[in-house]
Amino acid sequence: MASLSLSSPPSLSSSLHNASTRLNLRTPTSLKLRTNYHSHKHPSLSIKAITLTQDDLKKLAADKAVEYVKSGMVLGLGTGSTAAFVVSKLGDLLNSGQLTDIIGVPTSKRTEEQARSLGIPLSVLDDNPRLDLAIDGADEVDPFLNLVKGRGGALLREKMVEAASDKFVVVVDDTKLVSGLGGSGLAMPVEVVQFCWKYNLIRLQELFKEEGVDAKLRLDESGKPYVTDNSNYIVDLYFKTPIRDANAAGAEISALEGVVEHGLFLNMATSVIIAGKTGVEVKDK
Amino acid sequence: MASLSLSSPPSLSSSLHNASTRLNLRTPTSLKLRTNYHSHKHPSLSIKAITLTQDDLKKLAADKAVEYVKSGMVLGLGTGSTAAFVVSKLGDLLNSGQLTDIIGVPTSKRTEEQARSLGIPLSVLDDNPRLDLAIDGADEVDPFLNLVKGRGGALLREKMVEAASDKFVVVVDDTKLVSGLGGSGLAMPVEVVQFCWKYNLIRLQELFKEEGVDAKLRLDESGKPYVTDNSNYIVDLYFKTPIRDANAAGAEISALEGVVEHGLFLNMATSVIIAGKTGVEVKDK
Repeated sequence: MASLSLSSPPSLSSSLHNASTRLNLRTPTSLKLRTNYHSHKHPSLSIKAITLTQDDLKKLAADKAVEYVKSGMVLGLGTGSTAAFVVSKLGDLLNSGQLTDIIGVPTSKRTEEQARSLGIPLSVLDDNPRLDLAIDGADEVDPFLNLVKGRGGALLREKMVEAASDKFVVVVDDTKLVSGLGGSGLAMPVEVVQFCWKYNLIRLQELFKEEGVDAKLRLDESGKPYVTDNSNYIVDLYFKTPIRDANAAGAEISALEGVVEHGLFLNMATSVIIAGKTGVEVKDK
Repeated sequence: MASLSLSSPPSLSSSLHNASTRLNLRTPTSLKLRTNYHSHKHPSLSIKAITLTQDDLKKLAADKAVEYVKSGMVLGLGTGSTAAFVVSKLGDLLNSGQLTDIIGVPTSKRTEEQARSLGIPLSVLDDNPRLDLAIDGADEVDPFLNLVKGRGGALLREKMVEAASDKFVVVVDDTKLVSGLGGSGLAMPVEVVQFCWKYNLIRLQELFKEEGVDAKLRLDESGKPYVTDNSNYIVDLYFKTPIRDANAAGAEISALEGVVEHGLFLNMATSVIIAGKTGVEVKDK
């Protein structure tokens, strides 16, 4: 399997930085890079047949996201496999001197450790309450750039950091696209206090009677309740049909006493970078 | 010091049960019980000079609150010195057979222990998600029966239980009355996750720039951060002027990521029983 080179020609890279653009990668016979932004044509690139793995796609999208980073920025660093590629690339650019003076605000201990090992200077919201940019993955993205996040269990810290950022760039592969949030049939997590979690599980289930939902307490590998970094439990909601009004749903979930945070990230993403077998697409708000 | 008898004549007791009434205790020369509700006059009672302590007032108001309790009810049991008098009285009535078949849902471990020691059958929201009545104290009561609660640190459990109750009777002495919430100059507690508590403290302070507020992390006796039953911290807000719009303030506080609960109990109390040197007043909604 051929590896995919992640660097683009400088002129292309800088043009991609500025606006809504689309990169098409046509496989298996050629890799065609095309931008809609410029009216003049770029030369097409032809590459031998390659097979893009999920990791290739994540890496490609992560590199695209890092193009938003400028020297001197305070950056929110997400959590998860795609975010790990972002952090890795930031480390490279910092160590090569292409980026200077960046400060990272990690959203989990795992990310903190990775960033520290790469020599990225770190801070916390307590000391840097305003961030320039955050980059993170997501579990679902709807057509309005609303997200489901937190299947990794770090939803609260992610939401705190990303809500404090001027820009929030989301990096996903195209399996994460849904027509409506909850539409993947996978978990939408809600962090609840341990006290009377079953009561809140039932209340959450009743809140989504119309959509139909299975609410389940998340368990760890040993079958015990999964405990978040904040000593809370997670109730995972599995929707049978997409959530009808995500904004209303978010407000109703938050209003339940004992709910600490939920995985609906609404009106937060400013750009979403989507990697698919046919290319990388950037959607800006 | 003479002790104050807490039982009222049966006819008076039942009339007090039904509507907004006022009991006047005039000291030091006489104890006059008067109701505004009935147009016909009750006979006045004269008692020798007594001095009412704060505890006498709390007991008097607690007994009045217990008049709302009927056999067969599921009851939310509050936390604090006044609530302790309520639980004690419930134990008496249960043991004397005047009340039967009640189930208590305690709002703290302290209350749970007291109720258990008195033989009151106990349950939790998980098993009894709907309560008939909750009785608890409060730190502040405004003219619309909105409350500040949680100086004792149990605000989240109290709010969960009391929000699940059809009726919520609040028992206070008249030093707790304020023209606007926050007006006592004492703490309005906000429970926050430990992660980046300082960031949320600053955000809370900025939210109330107009009112003027000192936001302080609550410490325990040894000077370490006070940790709630839910492993969170408490930021105490000391307002310089009362909160201008409590409903808006409550929504804005809740919207901050990392805020678990706040001490504004809005549109929850259905009755407030106020004990003062001059009598006991009942306000119903």
